[in-house]
Amino acid sequence: MILPEPLEVLIEELNKLPSIGKKTAQRLALFLLRSDDEYIAKFITAIGNIKKNIKICTDCYNISTSEVCEICSSNKRDKSIICVVEDISDIIAVEKTNEYNGLYHVLGGVLSPLSGKDVESIRLKELIDRIRNSEVKEILLALNPDTEGETTSLYIAKLLKEFNVKVTRIARGLPVGGNLEFADEATVGRAVLNRITLQ
Amino acid sequence: MILPEPLEVLIEELNKLPSIGKKTAQRLALFLLRSDDEYIAKFITAIGNIKKNIKICTDCYNISTSEVCEICSSNKRDKSIICVVEDISDIIAVEKTNEYNGLYHVLGGVLSPLSGKDVESIRLKELIDRIRNSEVKEILLALNPDTEGETTSLYIAKLLKEFNVKVTRIARGLPVGGNLEFADEATVGRAVLNRITLQ
Repeated sequence: MILPEPLEVLIEELNKLPSIGKKTAQRLALFLLRSDDEYIAKFITAIGNIKKNIKICTDCYNISTSEVCEICSSNKRDKSIICVVEDISDIIAVEKTNEYNGLYHVLGGVLSPLSGKDVESIRLKELIDRIRNSEVKEILLALNPDTEGETTSLYIAKLLKEFNVKVTRIARGLPVGGNLEFADEATVGRAVLNRITLQ
Repeated sequence: MILPEPLEVLIEELNKLPSIGKKTAQRLALFLLRSDDEYIAKFITAIGNIKKNIKICTDCYNISTSEVCEICSSNKRDKSIICVVEDISDIIAVEKTNEYNGLYHVLGGVLSPLSGKDVESIRLKELIDRIRNSEVKEILLALNPDTEGETTSLYIAKLLKEFNVKVTRIARGLPVGGNLEFADEATVGRAVLNRITLQ
């Protein structure tokens, strides 16, 4: 059976989402088709609103509804330590542990020659500028414990040698080859507590 | 961390979709946040269009862009046999096998006292009207091989005793307790070929 064209189009769009295969996309499309108009309207508005109302923090590149995110603007946070993460979802993972009270820096990627991510395309220059212009005493590297993450951690550690900052890395409580975003809170919390001094 | 409110709202809406848990919803929301405006616009339009442009076939209750679906209006289909399915996704599953060339009838559910689905809330009256007003010779029951599906099949078989139609059921090639929508094409195809006469 050739499906009605509007449904085919929606399945195709859903299929582009991460972890959504062809069959799940079809299931979601049929669910949306059966949903009432109120839900559809709310859903469409919710998608439209994230683009309209969410900004990127000018300091740490976290997401926020204001120019500077609530972590950077809070006076309860320890501004002498910056936790470097690959992505916004990693901030969420670390925040959930309640083991960390410093600031963040979102790199927006890790060094990966195969995916075309080089030194220029992740926010390393911005990190160095922050170190230069603030009283940061420690940089905590919280990248995924896989090849790209490890390489990037070592690269950053080397890069920061000339600055007067302690460079630490979250502990190997995380299973090697795993993914920070999906690790459980206890594991991520343990990893933050057991961070190891690199230099 | 409290996420920006527009993102929380979207995660909540995505979480309502079938088979999308909290973590997947968060992942999808962050993916959408990072997507370019063009994709977001296409996605929103695609969702809006299914409601606007897809109709329910007046004969078999399949989905279609016209009043009568392409299966019912095709003169290549065998109009002497109607395959009774629970849902539109089951039509897709049977059509994919290329083993069936008749018409369909979408019940829109199966008898399930626990979920409040009784004889009145599935399209049984409509099925009987179709049998009365056409030259149907065979009703092929293709409901899921679980308790509700089996009960509904037996109920329909009993209901159709007074009509001059053969009632068949797709073969138990399907794993019992499984789900028609997710069965592989070979299994569903075998089940259509091996249908068993009930009366």
